[in-house]
Amino acid sequence: MLDQDVASAIIEAVDRSFDRQLRFTQDFVRIPSLRGQEHTVQDFMASAMAERDLSVDQWRIDVDDIKHLPGFAPVTISYENSFNVVGTYRPATRKGRSLIFNGHVDVVPTGDAARWTTPPFEPRIDGHWMYGRGAGDMKSGLAATLFAFDAVRAAGFQPTAPIHFQSVVEEECTGNGTLACLQRGYKADCAFVPEPLQPKLLRAEIGLIWFRVHVAGDPQHASGFTSTGANAIEKALALWPHIKALEDLWNARKCDHPVYKNHPHPIRFNIGEITGGEWTSSVPSTATLHVRCSVLPGWSLSEACAEIEACVRNAALTDPYLSNNPPRIEYHGHMAEGYVLENGAAQEAVLADSHRMVFGTALEEEVTSAATDARFFGLYQGTPAIVYGPICESAHGFDERVDLNSLRAVTKTMALFLADWCGIERVKA
Amino acid sequence: MLDQDVASAIIEAVDRSFDRQLRFTQDFVRIPSLRGQEHTVQDFMASAMAERDLSVDQWRIDVDDIKHLPGFAPVTISYENSFNVVGTYRPATRKGRSLIFNGHVDVVPTGDAARWTTPPFEPRIDGHWMYGRGAGDMKSGLAATLFAFDAVRAAGFQPTAPIHFQSVVEEECTGNGTLACLQRGYKADCAFVPEPLQPKLLRAEIGLIWFRVHVAGDPQHASGFTSTGANAIEKALALWPHIKALEDLWNARKCDHPVYKNHPHPIRFNIGEITGGEWTSSVPSTATLHVRCSVLPGWSLSEACAEIEACVRNAALTDPYLSNNPPRIEYHGHMAEGYVLENGAAQEAVLADSHRMVFGTALEEEVTSAATDARFFGLYQGTPAIVYGPICESAHGFDERVDLNSLRAVTKTMALFLADWCGIERVKA
Repeated sequence: MLDQDVASAIIEAVDRSFDRQLRFTQDFVRIPSLRGQEHTVQDFMASAMAERDLSVDQWRIDVDDIKHLPGFAPVTISYENSFNVVGTYRPATRKGRSLIFNGHVDVVPTGDAARWTTPPFEPRIDGHWMYGRGAGDMKSGLAATLFAFDAVRAAGFQPTAPIHFQSVVEEECTGNGTLACLQRGYKADCAFVPEPLQPKLLRAEIGLIWFRVHVAGDPQHASGFTSTGANAIEKALALWPHIKALEDLWNARKCDHPVYKNHPHPIRFNIGEITGGEWTSSVPSTATLHVRCSVLPGWSLSEACAEIEACVRNAALTDPYLSNNPPRIEYHGHMAEGYVLENGAAQEAVLADSHRMVFGTALEEEVTSAATDARFFGLYQGTPAIVYGPICESAHGFDERVDLNSLRAVTKTMALFLADWCGIERVKA
Repeated sequence: MLDQDVASAIIEAVDRSFDRQLRFTQDFVRIPSLRGQEHTVQDFMASAMAERDLSVDQWRIDVDDIKHLPGFAPVTISYENSFNVVGTYRPATRKGRSLIFNGHVDVVPTGDAARWTTPPFEPRIDGHWMYGRGAGDMKSGLAATLFAFDAVRAAGFQPTAPIHFQSVVEEECTGNGTLACLQRGYKADCAFVPEPLQPKLLRAEIGLIWFRVHVAGDPQHASGFTSTGANAIEKALALWPHIKALEDLWNARKCDHPVYKNHPHPIRFNIGEITGGEWTSSVPSTATLHVRCSVLPGWSLSEACAEIEACVRNAALTDPYLSNNPPRIEYHGHMAEGYVLENGAAQEAVLADSHRMVFGTALEEEVTSAATDARFFGLYQGTPAIVYGPICESAHGFDERVDLNSLRAVTKTMALFLADWCGIERVKA
């Protein structure tokens, strides 16, 4: 546990640079790092790391490097612009425990920008909120890792263990960015992912499966003057209630789950996109449902997929046309196991101490219906992964925003955590 | 009624040039004249008309010229490439009755080209069928107008009345191409539209309305970790059964209709396209249904629209979210009245004679659940409009095809019709 004077010095350093941190975060949010166009924001992060004398490793993700690894998720886009950046601090002499800070730069689409109060990539501060796509999820948290590091040094200290600052892509769709960091050999004694799931210790997160249901119709003239055909959109719509019914079925199983039994609604089947048809006066030849569903930690992904496939197959059997023209299922992204933080007593203790020094209260725990990249460290590397971050509202929605009071406090917790976990020594003048 | 020898000479001329007609039709089909890219096919048609010494009028449709006219339909695309071509034959001395041949060059999208037996824009003849997008609907019919004209002249005759060959765009979505021909002043004593609705006299066609239903959701993270939001796609899906129910309601009204009371199913509400959402793991912020519906001749379009709007409004009231966030209706294309051929006794008599000379049978009548551009001539110009054409299968579908036996016969009927209606005189050597 840190000395109170040391902690106070670090906390004050966070306060001193917080305006600068906000400006940096705004610059960060301003770059529209939608999937497939994260290259410029990664240059921005690489520069920020280089300015801090971190050793910068920036590389394009190569699917061939990772496709055989556990945790890999199917890729449907080009990774031409999909770069990771890792900035590494190495102490002159290593004494403490190493640390990985991990956060993602990719953001989800904004939806109709006209429905935002102000443009989504023009970050706006109003009261204690910063608005903008990615402001909460999760550029503020990722930026905070660098400013936590700054604060320790500004207070006159240097860490005594290696720290890797991982700025990754692909968190919102596959997790392949963090997987590529593992594949490249990055490993530490603790991982810390400041996702905006509140300043609480995340005990568990769900897993995710993305799948598409493709229905092929029998296109004809909409008048039916030669044949009525089979409307792919209507056939797809008829499948959806069957698929959605899995949500209740799977949620009911939470009662058997040690961690999720008290969560009100961990499993969600979300139809996130739909496409179908090409011409208003043609019976549509295609329709596709794009679905995100969740699984509880410990569930087998292959069994979950088999259950989804059986559900769609059985639903198709209720329709004469679909019986003979069965829908096709494609897995087009997340194929993620759930994760429960275990064997992290040391990490948790340091977080609890750091949190108490900032908030003056005991660290609470959270169990979430969302997923993060923390799973990779925990499941595939044996590294306990802390998820702890600021408060965000309307993630993935209009007027996404991060609470700046929580951001300031969380930055302090992270700085103290870094100092306590890695160890610090006073820099000789 | 034509002299039998004259008729035989013309019929033989059609036979003699039929191989050439097929090659021309294949060249015509080969040009992928999808909406917004019909300019090259219209150059092709302009050349074909110029080769026949027709006076060629080729112009870009200007919405400002037609937007105030009855029959105009809303436009959502640029007309940058939307040209009409009219080739006019003028006799030295005018004696007979003038004629407009009208056909459209625009074709609907192919759907997944891989599901065609052979590529949709590589027209293939197999037995008595020609396959290809637009082969039936309606390039073969439009090409036949020029070859009918050729046959009359090849037999040694020249027509004694003006003939306008109208090659129009926008039939599949608005009808604004033919409307622009009316606006430009083209008028005749008869219009003839060789749509592939069989070699029968089309007595009546339905009207069309295209509308979109836009639903705005409340997008959130699909996990529901901050809010569950409102899924625009699911809300839109819930509206569809209400809208589709209008089909039965409106079909029931056919019992009161003098022409449609015996048609099995004149009204169809087709959901032809659907779009929604942007990200699989976001609760979608938007969803849009693209619907084509039909109305019977004599129905008021504004009343039909009001009924659709009331239906959607009432459906929305069954959902708490939609009650407060009502869907928006947009009219994005066809706004077409139905049409019954009337006051065309003279035209019908000539068609019946011509048909009998070719087929040896009486001309039958047809009432269709489809629409054509014939309505413009009948409703807004007082010109009786004949629709009569070859047999087509899978219009708007995969492997669209036209029956070449029917095409050959219909070309003969059209040539005889032209000769009889317009009058002919023997060309002096």
